[in-house]
Amino acid sequence: MSYNAPLKDMLFVMNELANLSEINQLPGCEDATPDTVEAVLEENAKFCGEVVAPLNHPGDKEPSYWHDGQVTTSKGFKEAFRSFADAGWQGVQHPAEFGGQGLPKLVATPCIEMLNASNIAFALVGLLTDGAIEALLTAGTDEQKTRFIEPLISGKWTGTMNLTEPQAGSDLAAVRTRAVPQGDGTYKVFGTKIFITYGEHDMAENIIHLVLARTPDAPAGVKGISLFIVPKFHVNADGSLGERNDVHCVSIEHKLGIKASPTAVLQFGDHGGAIGTLVGEENRGLEYMFIMMNAARFGVGMQGIGLAERAYQQAVAFAKERVQSRAVEGSSGPVAIINHPDVRRMLMSMRAQTEAARALAYVGAGLSDLAHSHPDEATRKTNLALYEYLVPVIKGWSTEMSENVARDGVQVHGGMGFIEETGAAQHYRDAKILTIYEGTTAIQANDLVGRKTVRDGGAVAKAILAQVRATEAQLADAQDADLAAIRTQLVAGSAALEAVVDYVVANTKADPRAVFAGSVVYLKLAGVVLGGWQMARAALVARNKLAAGDGDAAFYRAKIATARFFADHILSQADGLRHAIVDGSAGVLALDVEQF
Amino acid sequence: MSYNAPLKDMLFVMNELANLSEINQLPGCEDATPDTVEAVLEENAKFCGEVVAPLNHPGDKEPSYWHDGQVTTSKGFKEAFRSFADAGWQGVQHPAEFGGQGLPKLVATPCIEMLNASNIAFALVGLLTDGAIEALLTAGTDEQKTRFIEPLISGKWTGTMNLTEPQAGSDLAAVRTRAVPQGDGTYKVFGTKIFITYGEHDMAENIIHLVLARTPDAPAGVKGISLFIVPKFHVNADGSLGERNDVHCVSIEHKLGIKASPTAVLQFGDHGGAIGTLVGEENRGLEYMFIMMNAARFGVGMQGIGLAERAYQQAVAFAKERVQSRAVEGSSGPVAIINHPDVRRMLMSMRAQTEAARALAYVGAGLSDLAHSHPDEATRKTNLALYEYLVPVIKGWSTEMSENVARDGVQVHGGMGFIEETGAAQHYRDAKILTIYEGTTAIQANDLVGRKTVRDGGAVAKAILAQVRATEAQLADAQDADLAAIRTQLVAGSAALEAVVDYVVANTKADPRAVFAGSVVYLKLAGVVLGGWQMARAALVARNKLAAGDGDAAFYRAKIATARFFADHILSQADGLRHAIVDGSAGVLALDVEQF
Repeated sequence: MSYNAPLKDMLFVMNELANLSEINQLPGCEDATPDTVEAVLEENAKFCGEVVAPLNHPGDKEPSYWHDGQVTTSKGFKEAFRSFADAGWQGVQHPAEFGGQGLPKLVATPCIEMLNASNIAFALVGLLTDGAIEALLTAGTDEQKTRFIEPLISGKWTGTMNLTEPQAGSDLAAVRTRAVPQGDGTYKVFGTKIFITYGEHDMAENIIHLVLARTPDAPAGVKGISLFIVPKFHVNADGSLGERNDVHCVSIEHKLGIKASPTAVLQFGDHGGAIGTLVGEENRGLEYMFIMMNAARFGVGMQGIGLAERAYQQAVAFAKERVQSRAVEGSSGPVAIINHPDVRRMLMSMRAQTEAARALAYVGAGLSDLAHSHPDEATRKTNLALYEYLVPVIKGWSTEMSENVARDGVQVHGGMGFIEETGAAQHYRDAKILTIYEGTTAIQANDLVGRKTVRDGGAVAKAILAQVRATEAQLADAQDADLAAIRTQLVAGSAALEAVVDYVVANTKADPRAVFAGSVVYLKLAGVVLGGWQMARAALVARNKLAAGDGDAAFYRAKIATARFFADHILSQADGLRHAIVDGSAGVLALDVEQF
Repeated sequence: MSYNAPLKDMLFVMNELANLSEINQLPGCEDATPDTVEAVLEENAKFCGEVVAPLNHPGDKEPSYWHDGQVTTSKGFKEAFRSFADAGWQGVQHPAEFGGQGLPKLVATPCIEMLNASNIAFALVGLLTDGAIEALLTAGTDEQKTRFIEPLISGKWTGTMNLTEPQAGSDLAAVRTRAVPQGDGTYKVFGTKIFITYGEHDMAENIIHLVLARTPDAPAGVKGISLFIVPKFHVNADGSLGERNDVHCVSIEHKLGIKASPTAVLQFGDHGGAIGTLVGEENRGLEYMFIMMNAARFGVGMQGIGLAERAYQQAVAFAKERVQSRAVEGSSGPVAIINHPDVRRMLMSMRAQTEAARALAYVGAGLSDLAHSHPDEATRKTNLALYEYLVPVIKGWSTEMSENVARDGVQVHGGMGFIEETGAAQHYRDAKILTIYEGTTAIQANDLVGRKTVRDGGAVAKAILAQVRATEAQLADAQDADLAAIRTQLVAGSAALEAVVDYVVANTKADPRAVFAGSVVYLKLAGVVLGGWQMARAALVARNKLAAGDGDAAFYRAKIATARFFADHILSQADGLRHAIVDGSAGVLALDVEQF
């Protein structure tokens, strides 16, 4: 159950598909030279493989636990987090002025993948801390930035996002937590927050809770929500810790997976009021929260990809080792099960989906870097729109596919997969949260339909489809059986996606129920087609490298075969998905509630 | 988390699709009158709902445990099994001469569904006992039948199937357990068996292990395996219990799901030899075991359907109760989430797949009754072939779909689904064993390709397709928008399935690796098309009933809508699956082992 980071594929994707050399030219990204990037990734791979990955299964077996308001995390987590922070890994993508490494998102992304492949439950504390840092960078005062960001980047403290309440899950309009101004610039916060990841733990000196709450005169709904900093321990002006604040962990959840990660119920203000300070302006909390949430959504997509890679590696190792039954074409005795065609099919499915999702996500990260750092405003704007279209797809599709991959990972193990000791089942359990938290797949799909497709009349979607068409033309020129087969499926896939974009744009206003009946299917179709597009691009690069006699031929041949698999087994679903969206709403919506 | 048996749908399928009235005419099935059947089902529903279903979640929380060779089952299981047996439920389908009720398989099938919907971990003890009874009925001597069957049917004792060994999972050729003849008609059995469901427990006085083992001079491979009865306690000639036999439970597994069901490692013969008696002839053990295995495979398919129904009911209940967010078309306030289109889509997907799999399985049960009880030999033979084609599809597809349904069940619950207390996660965990035990989906698919399709040149598959075509013709006559939409997908689906059958028949000998690379996809395609066919048949019946003003109009309208959903969302995948099978082997098989 070890983890070996797929550095070769990561670097291939960064260099050949996500344009690292172009990103490296951007102002502020000059440090991201090919050599530096490779060194960073190698160092991160070593750290993750040696320190973090070995804690994954033990943390599942002996989860964090609550006693009398304190949470003790799984054995080794505290020490590993110290090493993680001391090595500077929390700060990869954060500004150098607060102690970060200031590297582009494209470079931080494989690091996040490796950390999550190693141990999702562990990685979460950093993911949430990243979110808190982003929110403070965006909306914090200079004093808040100075006081909080550096200790968060150094790992002295960690951060949380406090959104959910019992009656307010996906629906943040229902948030009831109150924040009462004290006249001294502070607020007293009262309320209950649930599902707070690392809401209490013993891995850092302080926990900086970012909390959504309503001020007394706030308007109803999402327009009356403000964002507050509520530290576990008050922070003095000199940065030292003061008194314990009135926020307490009353329990943690007993969960299906990510058991080492404590999921807290936090009680604010039961003993007089938890003191908080406002971030940014009143009533704009949701806007700021969405900044951290968008970063977190991308991060959860990476969790799916990391988990899928880990499940794949474990299944491959088992399939090479386990000897069972003769080969279907005949053999002198039983063979390793990797030789059985259906085991091979499952492994290829796991591999192809993981590689496709990785490519799409890294390309997204590169677009984000262009959106933030390109000197030309129009270029920034264009790339931001492309990136924002991809975020719900990266989050939604990468996590949905990770469930399937983890499932196949158990299946490859046969009966042994069902035994917890084997470890394959942990991935199956852990994966199930990824399509739920930071916005369920349906919430991502709402975003894809509403803000990302309908709002601009499908313009960004069409711009992406034009790029897909350009790849199709290159495939047509290639005179290669594999690339021709890939092209056939990509042409069908892009036609299906275009038909759906047109349908969504034309019908959302007049018949929203019909369109939203297919929203998640649209998201999956987008993932399948755009993932298939990236695999097609990869196959083109690989074929050119092979023709030039350049580099690792076995790697490039495997890339073409994997792209071919993706086209024939995954992308081939596209037209069926189109049908379900465009013609499938009647069946979804026909029943009365009473008929269920 | 209660369970209400879907008696209306069950009776609809039995009467309208599986020809209960025809089965009732068969010799030996005269008792299965409509009134009796309804009464049996109602009584079973009551028992399962009141006694068995409430033990499901507690059994998961406090699993059976091992101490010093003894297994204590979860609280309430012992008493519930006593009630189950005393009420005669173990004997529904077994011969009256041994104390059973002698009802057709078509009537036993909904009872098995209800028991499994209530509690899979509990139902397993009966499922395995059914298997032991079948094997003894087929191959046991009169004395063995007399001595063992009645106490198994009465639930005084239970049965097990001992196939798996550490090196022999799917590959029974690798079985090493030895059986040494003692010259007195008995054998001493030595070896280790793993994954033995209810291999040790406290719910009955004795456990009758049916064990695969090799005699000293047996040929290698599957042709050298014999079947033995090895009781936990010896059984005297008068049926009373004798000494403890030398078979001992050395541990039970820590599993992902079905935790209340003890999965034993059994050690045979560590203290001198476990005494066993041969069943049938030497070296024919695998043949007999397949008799119980085929019955068990059908039963596991029913487990998938039962689990899917339970997960569906739980998700519906939550979706009606949980209020969150406004309606996409606008609403004055937050609404119950069942009103959100994507929740509706998930519920319809769960419902449609469950109903389709139920219909296909019940139709299969009816074919089995015709195969066993019809007076005309040719009719028996025809129906046996049809039934045997369906068994791997019923086992493989119903269980694969149950994983998807259980997954959607968690997803409908959002964050609450990830909390174990809610209970939705248990279904997700429990479901994962169903595609593995009694032969993984790949093993079912091998059977479907080899014995069920290639061996007769696709004749049975084509005979079924001819029936599908007849349904398509009826749909064409119906002049109804829903039925027309269903027909379009069914026509495409049956064409896809026919193309695949032709491909399999034409290529298995010449290129087995290519065909087996698509074997599981073929199984899924068969499930999708044949399940869609049953839903189309159901929609036709429902439409005729509505036209005649006959019966429960809301039920029939829901049936048509559900069939429409199945066609547009599930059956619409058929052509993509065909492509993956017929054109997809290159991508599956291209990589060398070292490239993984």
